[in-house]
Amino acid sequence: MRQSQLFTKTRREIPADEVSQSAQLLIRAGFVHKEMAGVYSFLPLGLRVMKRIIKVIKQEMETLGAVELFLSSLQDPTVWQSTDRWRDDEVDIWFKTKLKNEAEVGLGLTHEEPLTRIMKEHITSYRDLPRYVFQFQTKFRNELRAKSGLLRAREFLMKDLYSFTATAAGLDEFYEQVAKAYERIWRAVGIGDQTYRAFASGGAFSKFSDEWQTVCTGGEDTIYLAKDKSMAINQEVFTKEVLAELGKKPTAFEEVRAIEVGNIFKLGTRFSEALGLLYADETGQIKPVVMGSYGIGPARVMATIVELHHDAQGMIWPKSVAPFEVHIVELNPKNSRAVSDEASELAKQFDGQGIAVLHDDRDLRAGEKFADSDLIGIPVRVVVSEKTMRAGKFEVKERAGTRSELMSTKELVKKLSTR
Amino acid sequence: MRQSQLFTKTRREIPADEVSQSAQLLIRAGFVHKEMAGVYSFLPLGLRVMKRIIKVIKQEMETLGAVELFLSSLQDPTVWQSTDRWRDDEVDIWFKTKLKNEAEVGLGLTHEEPLTRIMKEHITSYRDLPRYVFQFQTKFRNELRAKSGLLRAREFLMKDLYSFTATAAGLDEFYEQVAKAYERIWRAVGIGDQTYRAFASGGAFSKFSDEWQTVCTGGEDTIYLAKDKSMAINQEVFTKEVLAELGKKPTAFEEVRAIEVGNIFKLGTRFSEALGLLYADETGQIKPVVMGSYGIGPARVMATIVELHHDAQGMIWPKSVAPFEVHIVELNPKNSRAVSDEASELAKQFDGQGIAVLHDDRDLRAGEKFADSDLIGIPVRVVVSEKTMRAGKFEVKERAGTRSELMSTKELVKKLSTR
Repeated sequence: MRQSQLFTKTRREIPADEVSQSAQLLIRAGFVHKEMAGVYSFLPLGLRVMKRIIKVIKQEMETLGAVELFLSSLQDPTVWQSTDRWRDDEVDIWFKTKLKNEAEVGLGLTHEEPLTRIMKEHITSYRDLPRYVFQFQTKFRNELRAKSGLLRAREFLMKDLYSFTATAAGLDEFYEQVAKAYERIWRAVGIGDQTYRAFASGGAFSKFSDEWQTVCTGGEDTIYLAKDKSMAINQEVFTKEVLAELGKKPTAFEEVRAIEVGNIFKLGTRFSEALGLLYADETGQIKPVVMGSYGIGPARVMATIVELHHDAQGMIWPKSVAPFEVHIVELNPKNSRAVSDEASELAKQFDGQGIAVLHDDRDLRAGEKFADSDLIGIPVRVVVSEKTMRAGKFEVKERAGTRSELMSTKELVKKLSTR
Repeated sequence: MRQSQLFTKTRREIPADEVSQSAQLLIRAGFVHKEMAGVYSFLPLGLRVMKRIIKVIKQEMETLGAVELFLSSLQDPTVWQSTDRWRDDEVDIWFKTKLKNEAEVGLGLTHEEPLTRIMKEHITSYRDLPRYVFQFQTKFRNELRAKSGLLRAREFLMKDLYSFTATAAGLDEFYEQVAKAYERIWRAVGIGDQTYRAFASGGAFSKFSDEWQTVCTGGEDTIYLAKDKSMAINQEVFTKEVLAELGKKPTAFEEVRAIEVGNIFKLGTRFSEALGLLYADETGQIKPVVMGSYGIGPARVMATIVELHHDAQGMIWPKSVAPFEVHIVELNPKNSRAVSDEASELAKQFDGQGIAVLHDDRDLRAGEKFADSDLIGIPVRVVVSEKTMRAGKFEVKERAGTRSELMSTKELVKKLSTR
């Protein structure tokens, strides 16, 4: 894509109303736009990153045998009343609104209830189990405070996966498969080394749930990480009793800040009993379906990647989720046709090989172009100028590195295809 | 995909609360689930069709040079107050809700205002123009009545494209390019022959806007279609004055029902003036940017395809948007390993060739399987049974046709790759 076609401009000044480093950088680089506290729009560069993160997650969901659907945002109160999650004194983050006839409706903050109701039409026998379904859908949560940028938004995309199994053993088995898929996702998007599975509160559903926490100074959560990194425990369950149960001493842990990038819950029969999602087993006995739910917020993952991968000049995207793989920076103060043709030709060649390329064809000074390139953080920068043309090479620099080197087309293509 | 993995079951009975034929069929076949009047969830088969429609539209948007973004649903009132579209007596289909601090926010019913505000940060000079951006995003509209299924929903996905040009001439030119792209889209999704460009009210923005209306008995709109099909006029502007202006006689038209599948508006400077989206022209003069907006609702398009393409047995999907291209129906009452292997092998072969296949591996009677296959409406059905194996062929039937024929693998693959 030509950068002249990409309408977003970068800004130098740090947005005064953002304390989160990731939000500051994503806004300055034109990846997102803040509509109000906790509400962001995704501009083309940000949307490209989101789509790549979504693709990684989706592939893992399909490997788990899950099928994609897309549930509504507007929520019918009756199904939430059945589980007692409609009243504001039970769930205090609802956004509610009204139809013309004054009937109240809610905005989906999660989707266990409506999905369980749908499943009642499709699950009646053990032969219909197990079922795994997932979606990428916006959640609305009326958070009292939303000051951590994309780390705690009032409106955010979520991947939610739900499992429906005949038995608790079936749930346990799938739960661990999801845990493994999550670990693969963190590695794939470049946060694997700093992300730990942590014991967390199981809420109303079970003793514990599991979270994945990415250790990071910008995190909103506090966790206790074993000094040997073998275990992590969310502050909320870091108690004497839990430590005794796990056979650990408090001194084996240190307190760190972290971002919760994913969580998984054993829901058991909480929803299936309340809503009557039942099945007949092999002997004809009627039983409630056993459920689990598994969440990841792609925008929070995007912000977490930025929290981990940036420097004073800007973001440094891992190749797997970068908005583009290569940034061709054309330096062409004299508007030489030869230089612009050379840059366009190289971009075309990358396009043909399926290597996503952003071509900075704008008429700006070299300093501005380099500053933008560093801020946006595409992994590899290739300079095309009269100087590089005279050398018969391209000037190539990795965003994460410090030195640039001259390369022929062949060397450059080889570098990009083997990275 | 194996049909046993697809959790949805079909139903024989017509949903009592739906008058729209498309909604009835889509619900019976398990493509969508009705959450409440005007609110639908998309189950796997429906989501697959939606994604294919979206892909067709997206490709045309990119051909127009437009860039994709994704704006928020939650809306800040201040930007809507600037254009006087916040008050309920001005716009009566808002869904409004409140933050914890009691501040009102709205749910996006369209996105001119927030997008214009974003563009103020990125357009300042004639050099920044033209700009074309689009998104696929949910719109919320508090319709008083929502009784036509997916044809008029309270929550629905929309493709909205916006143009920002320096001059009215620039707008006119792009507007006609979009019109051509729209015509290509209708043809690509199988509704081209029945879809007409119609004069419609320009609302507050201009004398006329343009709609595309698909002639169809299930339509909510009334249009006047020239008997020679050369022109269509929405009822709302079918007046003596307009006919005189167009040099037409009322007797040249007949009244027909139709579904509005797309509309395009010349917004002019209505939003840019109200919100201060200005640019400096070549002479340094400050002018308001000229805007246009262009909508298509993919779910309404999906429902329109069903209104046009169905029979008493069910839906008949055009190949371009079908949830799968081939439906392998395995008839295997004796649970023969050879039959199931043969069916799986064929499915694998299609998968390998990028032909999307649904493999009905369920243990059901032939009659039920055929009825489901007809209802779901995948274009080509291939029966694999002991009988077909003895013949060394497959029994192939087009959903739109009446006769089945025996084909070898080679003939079948050829048929599917040349359809």
